[in-house]
Amino acid sequence: MDIDDWRVIIDELDVQIVDLLNRRSQCAIEIGRIKQRLGLAVYSPSREAEVLSNVTSHNKGPLDNEAIRRLFERIIDESRRVERVTVSRENHTQEKDSH
Amino acid sequence: MDIDDWRVIIDELDVQIVDLLNRRSQCAIEIGRIKQRLGLAVYSPSREAEVLSNVTSHNKGPLDNEAIRRLFERIIDESRRVERVTVSRENHTQEKDSH
Repeated sequence: MDIDDWRVIIDELDVQIVDLLNRRSQCAIEIGRIKQRLGLAVYSPSREAEVLSNVTSHNKGPLDNEAIRRLFERIIDESRRVERVTVSRENHTQEKDSH
Repeated sequence: MDIDDWRVIIDELDVQIVDLLNRRSQCAIEIGRIKQRLGLAVYSPSREAEVLSNVTSHNKGPLDNEAIRRLFERIIDESRRVERVTVSRENHTQEKDSH
């Protein structure tokens, strides 16, 4: 296999990664809606530790656990960002509708 | 579904993401070995642009393209790091063996 063959595989893997990242973020939004309804904080340090423990325990390499940890800190951050923006927008719309 | 149900799904998605990230990095290592053999540079700005174009063109949200771009800049960075470390270690071992 030459470089271009491997790049085709990378492109296919990347499309799957994009899909999974979006499905993950959709779950985060659902959690954000529940938290909003119950008046709970978006940020949960213990849950973040749980996520990092889950991913590093399932890591078989070649990425080492530090790389997986760095990647998931970013993934958690982006999930939380879209969760916050989406729920805040929905909440704002509901408040407007109720006035 | 309550918060814990969504977290179970997130944990399952994360395990799949870890697997795909590692498969992606393995491809990067294979490319690194070929480049090493051919004397080519690891860093390729045009390929990086191609990767970002591929992932944003397949993005259906809720993550926006800026978030996908930020995430893949990190993913590319970690792939390149493990590619460089692995190939350099293999090269070093070969040099030692040939002396």
